[in-house]
Amino acid sequence: MNIYDVSKKAGVSIATVSRVLNGNPNVSEKTRARVLEVMEDLGYTPNVFARGLGLGTIQTIGIMCSDSSDPYLAHAIYYLERDLRINGYDSILCCTGTSLETKRQYFDLLRSKKVDAIILAGSKFIEPKARDNSYITDASRDIPIMLVNGYLEGENIYCTLCDDRTATHRATGQLIASGCRRILYLYTSHSYSGTNKLKGYRDALLGHGLSVREEYIHQCEKDVIASRDLLLKLHEDGLFFDAVLTSDDALAVGAVKYAHKTERSIPDDLSIVGYNNSVYAVCTDPELTSIDSKVEALCTTTINTLMGVFNGGNVPSRTTIAADLIKRATTKF
Amino acid sequence: MNIYDVSKKAGVSIATVSRVLNGNPNVSEKTRARVLEVMEDLGYTPNVFARGLGLGTIQTIGIMCSDSSDPYLAHAIYYLERDLRINGYDSILCCTGTSLETKRQYFDLLRSKKVDAIILAGSKFIEPKARDNSYITDASRDIPIMLVNGYLEGENIYCTLCDDRTATHRATGQLIASGCRRILYLYTSHSYSGTNKLKGYRDALLGHGLSVREEYIHQCEKDVIASRDLLLKLHEDGLFFDAVLTSDDALAVGAVKYAHKTERSIPDDLSIVGYNNSVYAVCTDPELTSIDSKVEALCTTTINTLMGVFNGGNVPSRTTIAADLIKRATTKF
Repeated sequence: MNIYDVSKKAGVSIATVSRVLNGNPNVSEKTRARVLEVMEDLGYTPNVFARGLGLGTIQTIGIMCSDSSDPYLAHAIYYLERDLRINGYDSILCCTGTSLETKRQYFDLLRSKKVDAIILAGSKFIEPKARDNSYITDASRDIPIMLVNGYLEGENIYCTLCDDRTATHRATGQLIASGCRRILYLYTSHSYSGTNKLKGYRDALLGHGLSVREEYIHQCEKDVIASRDLLLKLHEDGLFFDAVLTSDDALAVGAVKYAHKTERSIPDDLSIVGYNNSVYAVCTDPELTSIDSKVEALCTTTINTLMGVFNGGNVPSRTTIAADLIKRATTKF
Repeated sequence: MNIYDVSKKAGVSIATVSRVLNGNPNVSEKTRARVLEVMEDLGYTPNVFARGLGLGTIQTIGIMCSDSSDPYLAHAIYYLERDLRINGYDSILCCTGTSLETKRQYFDLLRSKKVDAIILAGSKFIEPKARDNSYITDASRDIPIMLVNGYLEGENIYCTLCDDRTATHRATGQLIASGCRRILYLYTSHSYSGTNKLKGYRDALLGHGLSVREEYIHQCEKDVIASRDLLLKLHEDGLFFDAVLTSDDALAVGAVKYAHKTERSIPDDLSIVGYNNSVYAVCTDPELTSIDSKVEALCTTTINTLMGVFNGGNVPSRTTIAADLIKRATTKF
């Protein structure tokens, strides 16, 4: 039994139940009476409800990430921890790896610790098969689940997303406008974010009357050298491309190294666009044009949303933040 | 009152008290009787002792780092969390910034959470003035304090260190052997680690009969562009140098970018050595020769030492791990 049972039986939203519990005046007397009646009927004490509402809790949030040493996720952890701290919450960090089994194990572990909420940082947590995500939707009956750039539908699941699709769509459009016609797309994963980035690329090509050719779309390990070597191989195989759009700056650094090795001139002969606008972006010469995926804004919004949930506010289940295109020296625009 | 009072009154080491508490057979019957007698005299129950000994604790370790988004510290957190998890411990992460005030606040916060130990990751936690570190030595009466590449003397304080001094000494020696005479040294901080790296550089110069010139030693923000711009300024000011040794790969990347900008040839005209052998090292062309500071080994040793402390083992208060010099393309050796 939980807050959802109360919400259901009282015929009001969870947010309304939360407001009643928090003494928020923004509830009619009639509704308040009804909710309190149902709570009494169900034998609930406010203490039980307080879990997940910021009252009488352990004030600790579980953060799961696949790999805290990845630059994007390292920054995400930094901002999440900082903003939780500002709000008086500790964070327990779990680096889960990417297998479903270890992700579930860590998730269960955090639940057994009675954390007040679980944040899934990065888009590696949602599996394509719905039943593989049921452990998350099940848990969301008891505690809020926050997704940072991942998407899963469900009550008490809150997603803060970067608009990756528009970002790659725009970047591809700018590459085309600057004269590129054979744009290679390198990506690391089929995550929610990864899928959207790829969609943006495809849609932009089609929107500009260009065909989407599968030989121009390649998956690559998130590794500078792996990316360089993949491009060298495609080059040797005779594939011609005049631009490389990537789903991660590490792959774009590999593209710069490929161009150096083959003595192709950047950006005249080859344009390159990175993703995440990370520390990598200024390491290369020329420096990377890169899509800023707004990791700080994503994390701050995630924590603000979570605090809104705890305070019984009427918070959106999905917030999307626009990315920026940071123009440096690897593109003609 | 704590384990140290027992140790003192019984006239035995803390490790011996721990062994008694853990039923370790490696204690004479006479000593065991004496320790148990003192415990009774002082009104202690094993439960009180169990804190910090892995018995009946919250099985949670506090990890403090100045900035989890720094690549070195991001990896440290990853390895620490992983190895704690393997041993059945959670970790609470605090990103403290570098001011003494915030470091103390986070430290007190972790203590108030009754964590079983505190790990200070990175060498930014120890202040030059002993009284500024007294909050750490005071706490070590109650819980083990683990320093990852930081050094502070005190009972129940355990330091795992990289032999930074030997590492820069050797790298400087190799630069000299390869013909460099005017070796610039760029560093980021005066931490324990930073001081040792600088000593290694100075000692190597003196050991090879070269003079240490202060105009060749410069502090720089840990930032690629700041490093590049500092070198451009020194260059414009007419300082001649044929090598750049750095305390961090980010500074070495800046040196590569400086060389590109001034069209100096690497390594013929300018040798560059980075530190940490991080993701940065393979981003540049040419790729960085870099000192591998063995962050994984440091973290694994730290956790092994901590588990030794919890199990009442006779663990060393200081362990030093040798660095490696990874030779790539920015040096002639």
